[in-house]
Amino acid sequence: MKKSSFGILGLGVMGKSLALNMLNNHIPISVYNRETGEEVGVVADFLKTANNTSVKGFTDLGEFVNSIETPRQILIMVKAGKVIDRVINGLLPYLEENDIIIDGGNSHYEDTAKRVAYLSEHKINFIGLGVSGGEEGALKGPSLMPGGSKESYQKIAATLEKIAAKDDDGKPCCNYIGPAGAGHFVKMVHNGIEYGDMQLLAELYALLLLTKTYEEISKLFFEWNEGELASYLLEITAKILVEKEGNENLLNLILDKAGNKGTGSWSSTVALKLGVPTTVKTTAVYARYTSSFKNERVVLAKKIDRKIKSIEPIDLVALKEAYDFARTINLQQGLQLIKTASDTYNWGLDLAEICRIWSNGCIIKSKKIVAYSKVLQQVDSLFEAKQVVSGLNKQETAITKILQNGLANRVNVPCFYEAYNYWIAMTTAQSSANLIQAQRDFFGAHRFQKIGAKEEESFHHNWSELC
Amino acid sequence: MKKSSFGILGLGVMGKSLALNMLNNHIPISVYNRETGEEVGVVADFLKTANNTSVKGFTDLGEFVNSIETPRQILIMVKAGKVIDRVINGLLPYLEENDIIIDGGNSHYEDTAKRVAYLSEHKINFIGLGVSGGEEGALKGPSLMPGGSKESYQKIAATLEKIAAKDDDGKPCCNYIGPAGAGHFVKMVHNGIEYGDMQLLAELYALLLLTKTYEEISKLFFEWNEGELASYLLEITAKILVEKEGNENLLNLILDKAGNKGTGSWSSTVALKLGVPTTVKTTAVYARYTSSFKNERVVLAKKIDRKIKSIEPIDLVALKEAYDFARTINLQQGLQLIKTASDTYNWGLDLAEICRIWSNGCIIKSKKIVAYSKVLQQVDSLFEAKQVVSGLNKQETAITKILQNGLANRVNVPCFYEAYNYWIAMTTAQSSANLIQAQRDFFGAHRFQKIGAKEEESFHHNWSELC
Repeated sequence: MKKSSFGILGLGVMGKSLALNMLNNHIPISVYNRETGEEVGVVADFLKTANNTSVKGFTDLGEFVNSIETPRQILIMVKAGKVIDRVINGLLPYLEENDIIIDGGNSHYEDTAKRVAYLSEHKINFIGLGVSGGEEGALKGPSLMPGGSKESYQKIAATLEKIAAKDDDGKPCCNYIGPAGAGHFVKMVHNGIEYGDMQLLAELYALLLLTKTYEEISKLFFEWNEGELASYLLEITAKILVEKEGNENLLNLILDKAGNKGTGSWSSTVALKLGVPTTVKTTAVYARYTSSFKNERVVLAKKIDRKIKSIEPIDLVALKEAYDFARTINLQQGLQLIKTASDTYNWGLDLAEICRIWSNGCIIKSKKIVAYSKVLQQVDSLFEAKQVVSGLNKQETAITKILQNGLANRVNVPCFYEAYNYWIAMTTAQSSANLIQAQRDFFGAHRFQKIGAKEEESFHHNWSELC
Repeated sequence: MKKSSFGILGLGVMGKSLALNMLNNHIPISVYNRETGEEVGVVADFLKTANNTSVKGFTDLGEFVNSIETPRQILIMVKAGKVIDRVINGLLPYLEENDIIIDGGNSHYEDTAKRVAYLSEHKINFIGLGVSGGEEGALKGPSLMPGGSKESYQKIAATLEKIAAKDDDGKPCCNYIGPAGAGHFVKMVHNGIEYGDMQLLAELYALLLLTKTYEEISKLFFEWNEGELASYLLEITAKILVEKEGNENLLNLILDKAGNKGTGSWSSTVALKLGVPTTVKTTAVYARYTSSFKNERVVLAKKIDRKIKSIEPIDLVALKEAYDFARTINLQQGLQLIKTASDTYNWGLDLAEICRIWSNGCIIKSKKIVAYSKVLQQVDSLFEAKQVVSGLNKQETAITKILQNGLANRVNVPCFYEAYNYWIAMTTAQSSANLIQAQRDFFGAHRFQKIGAKEEESFHHNWSELC
């Protein structure tokens, strides 16, 4: 029997879609799923759906592994966490030297780095693969962020690049990201940016809802989506706004408690660890948390019974500029986090190429990312690009106006505030942080730096006592 | 030779101050410090400074342990981290069953929980002790937050309560907090609140500096400190503002890059993990991070060369109310984090008692905390207290005014914004989070909850395709 050239372990939503994508690209595959509990019949069902002679299905792990040509390429598509280690240890007895195991889940980059090291002891290659695009992207062409050894990547490159989305120039939205957990790190930051972008859209919707219908907001978003602000999230939001269930607007039926799968907070936790102020992303995570206190919110709203006297109308031109502004800041903060990680871990990441990989197939794909990918070929940071800085500078008036509108209308727009705050902070040469230095030295003798002194020099003031 | 009743290992700033505090309270102690590198002579120096017959000094660990009466009570005052484990393992051979080891450093509460478990295998008791008050507090009376087994606490209670600060009623600012890492957890949140309070003061200073001199700001803060806003941090800030070095205002000499020891971000990381939106604290951490990008700030400020046309004068009455408002929100968020941890870990923490412990001796001590400690005897959350909610409600106009002032004057006041945003979010019955639910279901089939449906029920909409 002819062996398959690729194996997929796990036929959940994403695994199934990637398998179909491979079949559509004429890649002979073996698929495996365990046959327990709710998962009974998964493989058989898939074979029926696929209806393709290039796929072999297995519920026996050894047979699955043996059906793949060596050195094997096996993509694990199971829920991230300890399960990955169990699956790896289950596979190990059947594997041979130089086989390549790929984890396509949302694993934590630190776990991925550990698995790369662990499997290399067994002479097995391990790739941590960030996959974005949801079900549809996985099926039609996802954005792929592989991290691990470059040699292993080169062996799987042909397959991954075939199934990946293609950018405007027809190049695959997939390329070697960097060693160890770099691929999963970049995917994690992608998700953080996604949180920020989604929350910004929710805030736009809250601001607009004061004076407009769902239909009107949808129309406005579709209009914006015709221009340089075009993005996947903007487009689906425009659609969501007019989606019906029966005769009712679907949004009217959905509870305003936003879920999260925990992974959204990872990029904030890492940012806190690495000292990078990713304020927009973190605020988006917190906004979801706050939304979950629904009962408390209803009770407090009733208690204070606050009404705004008259609605301050919103300037739509300013709103569009403010949205552009906030999206740019959100992206800039994410890229700053990637750059800091790259410097910290010596990963040598390429921000321009990462933006190019994000230019299609993924949830945060947008026209702006295509443009910024080109900008980043010339500079190391969006804040070093003259046109970006002058754009933000021009938009400052607009974002200020929108925040004033939010204040006047009592509408919660925390991510817009944080985008603005970060911009103001980063363009303020002399901040009030000297006071914090002084306070720390006063009560904790933590010492401070002085203006004009060497960076490594620190000072303690002999504070007079409190009365 | 008569044995000491208490041992202190580590004579850094805090260890030394606590040792002197014990001697002032007539507690016979043994002190130990290692005799290596820069630490040569530390014990001898301390004995000279103390000049007291109730203290015995050691540089030999075995002799130190043997000099303490059993069951021993030994307080470790060394830098948190792996060093603690090394010290514990160094002590172990000399210890006997039922001895009590106390870690008075800023250890992570998860590490403390592990150490409690590890030492209990050796029949040794371990207490994680949060200590706040800086050098002065340690010497004159700190706020103490002990966590571990209640039985062990009872054995060390007399000593700790003697050296602790006293509240308005003369009761010690020390009491059993809860099991395992609960003491260090509460100390960690205390530090998070401290970060928020410090940043709020820095933001006040930034707002006021547009129209006032250091002396005028200091005078205003001293005035506020006469009333119900009185706090240690407000008072030291008032002093810092007029502190001179030679003829120069000290603040003019200090670089505006705020340092941090990493522990400040812990409470934000934990908040992200536990799903609690501690937005003010986290924004304060991020503000320090942003301040550290000094070079970038200077370059960007020059590039955009933005000047405000005319300074919008600030309403001092509103400013005072806004400050009160933001401090209350910051505290509320911290207490919410403690409550969530208590529920998650089954710690049974007492918020009223925790606020009472914070009412003196620590960095965040204030008149308001005394008041809130009493409020919390009646309710589980500040947001359940009618007077607190109606106070915040009344102050909303003031904080709105101050934020408008910040926008008009281009002054960075992120923690004031976050206090406001949180209040608005928590008093908004119907939020825009339904859109986020819809987006997640659209691209990731993550499902959503419906209004009126059971909490455990989730739904998936059959979305029409994008065109």
